[in-house]
Amino acid sequence: MKFVTFAANRPGRPVLRAGVLGDGVVVDIDHAIAARGGEPLAGSSSDGGSELLTLIRAGDPAIEIARAATEHVVAAGDEHNGDEVIIHPAGDVQLVSPLPRPNSLRDYLVVEEHLRNCVAAGLIDSIADEWYNIPAHYKGNVDEIYGPDDTVPWPAYTDKLDYELEICAVIGTPGRRISAEDAGRHILGYTLYNDWSARDLQAREMSVGTGPGICKDFGSSIGPCIVTPDEFDRDNAHLEARIDGEVWSSGVLGAMHFSFEEIIEWTSQEETLRPGDLLGSGTVGRGCGAEMDRWITEGCVVELEAEGIGVLRNRVGRKGAGPTRIIDVDALR
Amino acid sequence: MKFVTFAANRPGRPVLRAGVLGDGVVVDIDHAIAARGGEPLAGSSSDGGSELLTLIRAGDPAIEIARAATEHVVAAGDEHNGDEVIIHPAGDVQLVSPLPRPNSLRDYLVVEEHLRNCVAAGLIDSIADEWYNIPAHYKGNVDEIYGPDDTVPWPAYTDKLDYELEICAVIGTPGRRISAEDAGRHILGYTLYNDWSARDLQAREMSVGTGPGICKDFGSSIGPCIVTPDEFDRDNAHLEARIDGEVWSSGVLGAMHFSFEEIIEWTSQEETLRPGDLLGSGTVGRGCGAEMDRWITEGCVVELEAEGIGVLRNRVGRKGAGPTRIIDVDALR
Repeated sequence: MKFVTFAANRPGRPVLRAGVLGDGVVVDIDHAIAARGGEPLAGSSSDGGSELLTLIRAGDPAIEIARAATEHVVAAGDEHNGDEVIIHPAGDVQLVSPLPRPNSLRDYLVVEEHLRNCVAAGLIDSIADEWYNIPAHYKGNVDEIYGPDDTVPWPAYTDKLDYELEICAVIGTPGRRISAEDAGRHILGYTLYNDWSARDLQAREMSVGTGPGICKDFGSSIGPCIVTPDEFDRDNAHLEARIDGEVWSSGVLGAMHFSFEEIIEWTSQEETLRPGDLLGSGTVGRGCGAEMDRWITEGCVVELEAEGIGVLRNRVGRKGAGPTRIIDVDALR
Repeated sequence: MKFVTFAANRPGRPVLRAGVLGDGVVVDIDHAIAARGGEPLAGSSSDGGSELLTLIRAGDPAIEIARAATEHVVAAGDEHNGDEVIIHPAGDVQLVSPLPRPNSLRDYLVVEEHLRNCVAAGLIDSIADEWYNIPAHYKGNVDEIYGPDDTVPWPAYTDKLDYELEICAVIGTPGRRISAEDAGRHILGYTLYNDWSARDLQAREMSVGTGPGICKDFGSSIGPCIVTPDEFDRDNAHLEARIDGEVWSSGVLGAMHFSFEEIIEWTSQEETLRPGDLLGSGTVGRGCGAEMDRWITEGCVVELEAEGIGVLRNRVGRKGAGPTRIIDVDALR
C-alpha cells in the first residue's frame, strides 16, 4: 500500500487529504471509509481536510481499516459518495509530501561506500573509529519539508548546493526499548528523502563539532509516498538520481552498516519513537554530487527514484529567491 | 509576565492549562479571559485542557489580551467564575514544562568560557576557528521534555550523567530573514534549560561528526516559566546550579559570542522561525559538572535558578529505571 497526502480542489481553496495511491488513481481514505459506513480515521477537519499523521497515530487497526476500505472501493468502482470524490484520477490531484510536517526527522549515516567516497573526494579526512560502533545521527528541520514538484530554495549563502539520495523508514507503532528483532513491526513503511545540503557552509558548520545546522535546515524533500514493507524490496530496489534527465546516481541501498532495525534498537533505548518519526539511511553510495565533484545548477530538475516508491521530482530555485511550494501546505494544515 | 503550564485537578483526571504565575498565585488564562466575556485563546479543549502554545501562536494581540485579563482578575480578586477556578494558590497546582512539546529545540554554543573550560578539562582539543564566525547549533528532542519536579531518567548507557545550565529564548512572532535589529520583537521571553548529557557516550557520538544524538535526546528540562523580556535582565541576572543544595555553578549569562538577536538573524536566513521554537544559549561558563570534573550521582536533586525566572528542580533517577514524570503530560495533551 502506498500512502500519500494530496491536495484536492474545493471551491474557495484546496484542502489536504490523506490517500492511497493505486494504479493511476488516488483513493481518498476517509471518503472510502465513509462509503462503507465508517467514521473518518484521518480526522476530517471542519475545513474538509484530513491528515495522514492522524491515521498513523490511530495505529494498526486504523491502517487495516484504511487498507480494506480503499481496496473495496477500487474493486467496486465506487468513485463517488454523494458529493464527495472517493477515487481521483492521479492526474487530477497534486501530491504533496506524505507527511507535510513529520513528527521528527533523524538522519543516520550508515552507508560506508558514501563515506569512503567522501574521504576519496577530500570532503572528510577519515571515517571515525566510532562510526563502526554507533549509528550516529543528526536531527533535521521538520518545519521546512518539501514534496513532489515543489521548487526547493537555493539558499543565498551557498554556491555549492547538492542533493542526497536517501531512504527513510517511517515509524508507525510507537515504542521504547525496542529490540532489533521486534523493530520491524514499528516500521509503517519507507519513502524517498532528498537531504539537500549547502556543501560549502556544511564544511564550515560541521568543523565546529555540533553537526550540520542551517546548511541542511532550509529544506528537505520527502515523498512521493510511504510504501508499506510488503511492497518494497529494501535491499535490492533500484535507486536512481537524475539531474535534468541525466542519471548521476544509480544503485541500491544494499549494505547498511546498521540496519533500520538496529537503528531503532539503538535510538529507542531511553526515548520513545513515535508515529511519523522519520529515520534516514544517510546518503547511499555515489548518492550525491559532492562524491563525484559534480554540481547541480540553479533551475535544474532533480529526480530521485526508487523502485517500489516512485519518483520524487523537484526543481531547484534561483539563488536567494526563497521557497516556492506548489501547494502552500502550511496554510492548509 | 511569567507564562506557565500547570496541571489542574478535575474529577477523573488532571488537565493541563495555560497560566500566568503571579505573587503566590497561578492565574488560569482562558478562565480569566472568560470572566471578562472573552473567547478562550489558549484553546480550551473538550476535555477541559488548554495549551500555552496555542496562545503563543495566536500572536501579540492574544498575549496582550491574556496580560490584561490576568492583571484584571488579580486586581479585582476574581478567584472564581462559576465553577471554574481562575486564581489558584501556587501551592495548589503542579507546574509542568511551560511548553510540554515545544515546536522545536535548537541549542547553540555561544559562551566562550564554557568552551575554554572544556579545553582545559581535556573534553575537547581546541575551539574550532569557525566557532568565532558561525553560531552553530544542534537540534534537541522535543518528544522527551521534562518540567519542574520531574524525575529525569539516568540512562542505562551512561556512567557520567551531567547537567547543563542554559538560558533559552522562546520565539513568539514567526519570521524569516529577520535582521538582528528586528529580532527582539520575535522573542516572547526566556526560560531555563537543563541540557542533560551523558558525557561518556557524548564523546563517542560526537567523534563521528554529526553532533550529539542519544547522549542528549533522552531528556531535557525546561521551565519553570517563560518570562517576558521586560521582567528579565538577560545579561546580569544571577544564575546558579545547586546539587543537593550545594552551589556548583554560579554566574551570569553575560558575554555571548553571538547574541540571541544575532542567532535569530543567522538561523532565519532561509527558514522560518515559528512560535514555540526554543533557542538555547549553550552552557554558561562553569555551568556543568564536566568543566570541573565534578559528577552528579543517582538520586540527587539538581536545581537551576535564574533571577527573574525561578527554580527548575529535578531529581535524577536510578540508572536504567526509565522516566518518571510527576504529571504524565503526554497522556494529557
